[in-house]
This record gives sequence, structure tokens and C-alpha cells, in this order.
Amino acid sequence: MTASHPPFRVLCLPGSLRRDSWNRRLLWAAAAHAPATLSLELYEGLGEVPLFDEDSARTRPEDLAGVDALRSAVAAADGLLIATPEYNQSLPGVLKNALDWLSLDSPQGEVLEQKPVAITGASTGPWGTRLAQTALRQVLHACGALVMPTPTLFVASAASRFDADGRHADEALAVSLHRMTTALDRWIAQLRPETRDARPVCG
Amino acid sequence: MTASHPPFRVLCLPGSLRRDSWNRRLLWAAAAHAPATLSLELYEGLGEVPLFDEDSARTRPEDLAGVDALRSAVAAADGLLIATPEYNQSLPGVLKNALDWLSLDSPQGEVLEQKPVAITGASTGPWGTRLAQTALRQVLHACGALVMPTPTLFVASAASRFDADGRHADEALAVSLHRMTTALDRWIAQLRPETRDARPVCG
Repeated sequence: MTASHPPFRVLCLPGSLRRDSWNRRLLWAAAAHAPATLSLELYEGLGEVPLFDEDSARTRPEDLAGVDALRSAVAAADGLLIATPEYNQSLPGVLKNALDWLSLDSPQGEVLEQKPVAITGASTGPWGTRLAQTALRQVLHACGALVMPTPTLFVASAASRFDADGRHADEALAVSLHRMTTALDRWIAQLRPETRDARPVCG
Repeated sequence: MTASHPPFRVLCLPGSLRRDSWNRRLLWAAAAHAPATLSLELYEGLGEVPLFDEDSARTRPEDLAGVDALRSAVAAADGLLIATPEYNQSLPGVLKNALDWLSLDSPQGEVLEQKPVAITGASTGPWGTRLAQTALRQVLHACGALVMPTPTLFVASAASRFDADGRHADEALAVSLHRMTTALDRWIAQLRPETRDARPVCG
């Protein structure tokens, strides 16, 4: 049973820019099947994040509106849910590029540092983004994010797992998504600074 | 001793867009210290490759001039030399994004398939891009490229390894670069289709 609290804001990042991507559908379905204590919002601006370039970061800050918008959205969120496709046995360059920007220090700090994150991913093939999620997990660890260890959720054969409008998952996946988002709710609650501060000190 | 042949064209890809990046210097130095049987050309167009988007690939091919240019350069090269920085314990999103595009089929075929590739990388810290190169190697394998297994070259403490104009390496690194590029020359020679066709068949 999740404790009652004002909904945690969870920013959902799809790793693919394709409008009808399976991972966008997976995030829609996650929102449909999440507990009421989570408010999931899909972030649609990853395509506005330019290629990482430290020269432009110094000399053309006006080009970085897409980075600033993403950074602000991440900073304002209580947690992240990232759904990644697998390209060439790893996470997409588009997603890694966004994380490279987010790992820089900024006026808002390093916004991934200490951020609770859950990861998942869908593919139409049989492997369910096993290698992409493993690579993504390591990158997020390197960024200082607090990646939820379990439950994992690898979605294979994605083309047969969603309804016609792509907004809802089949029954088994709906159960898995509810379990994962409920665990994310607990993960965020347990890691919140005020919770950490309130913890009894041992010894 | 490398056999005499018309120079192999090696396209050099720096994984960072920064003008003065250590990996760009590493590739300049590789060109300075390579055997005469290799012709190394630095590719400067990675910043023109848009974010990977399968929708744009279908609907806005006019946006993909940067992809077409890269693909043509790779197709025309006898081999590649990639120098990667390490961002968040992996290869940069910019480099992965370019490889995601190159892994698609095209009128020129899958241009990384069967392409001889050597990888290296430089970082100012103590680890010399160990994890970035490991991640890059796996991605290239997934793309069907033929990645040279040895010698490996991990360049740590990069800020102290090049001369003032950044075009030449210190003596130890020059030796390593000569050894690596000489091995790449042999690797390309041994993998060329005409060589493969000429091989005696056993059995």
C-alpha cells in the first residue's frame, strides 16, 4: 500500500523521436496504468535538444533553448521514467545526447544528481531492449541518478502488446506497468530529501 | 613490413564537436605518425548530422544532407579511425547518433557492414576512455563493422601528450600511434574483398 501524498510529478522521456514509436506508446500506457499518487507527463521536446557541443555551450547560449527547457523540466520533476528503444545494442544517440547535456553543471545544478529514475523499454523483436537498458543504466549511474533496481521491465514483441490507438497495454503488460510505477512511487518517496532527513540515525 | 600498395583512404571521425578537442588532436597526430601507405582524412561534418528520426528519414529527406555526406564519405573510405571521448562512462551521444544513421540501409547499402575500423580515444583524466571505447566497440560490432582487436590505445592525461599546436604527440604516443595505424593498414589489406576472394579455400 502506497502512502497517501500529493501526486509526485514524473517526467517521461521517450528515447525515440518517431511519433508512433513503441516507447512513446509504452509511456502512454504507463500513465494509464499508474497509481493515482503519480502524475506522469510525457516530454516531447527531445528533438529540440541540439547536438552536444561545448563550444556552443560557451559561445552561443541562445542556441540552447531546447537544453534549458529539458533541464528545467527535469529539475522540476520528482522523478523520471525513461523508455528506450535499442539501436545497435545500446541506447539511441538522441537519448544519450540529451543525457550528456543534462550531466553538465548549470545554474540549476547537475539536475540528474540524486534524481530518482526508472527505466524500461520496448522493441518489436524478441530481446526487449536488454542491452539498451543495461547501457542506459550505466550512463545514468555515471550521471549520479538514483536508478530504481527492480522491478525491471523489458517489453519484447511490442507490436502485439498495445491496443489499436496505442494508449493502453494488454492485460499482462498493464499489470507489469502498474507494478513498476507503484515501485517508482515508493522509490521516490523513500529517496526524497525530507524523508532522508527524517530518517533515524543509527549508532 | 607493410606491403606496398596505393594508399588506403582512412576516414577519421572525432567523437567530439569541440574545435580544440583532444580527440581531434589525437587524429591529427595519428595522421602525422601514420605509415605512408595510409592516407588519413579528418571528417569535420558530424555536427551537420541531424538527430536520428525515422519520420524525417521518410518524409523530409531534404533535411538529411549531413547524413548523406557522412554516408558517402564512409562508403568511399577503405577504413575508419574513430577517436572517442568518454561522456558519462560511454561514447558521446553525437557519435552514437551518427552511427545510428549509418546503420540504416541506404542506396549505398549498410555502409558500416564489413568496414574495417580502428578505435582509440583520449581523455584528460586517468582512465583514457576505457569504458567509452568498450561501448563503442560493441556498437560497431552490432553494425557489422570489422573492428580491429589489437593494438588498443587508451590515451590518459591528454593535456600533457601533445605539442603546443596540438598537431604532434609526445614520443611515446607517436610510437603507439605509428604502431596502431600500421596495424590498421594490415587490417584493411587483410580484409579487402579482393584479398578475401583470393584466399585459398580449405578442405
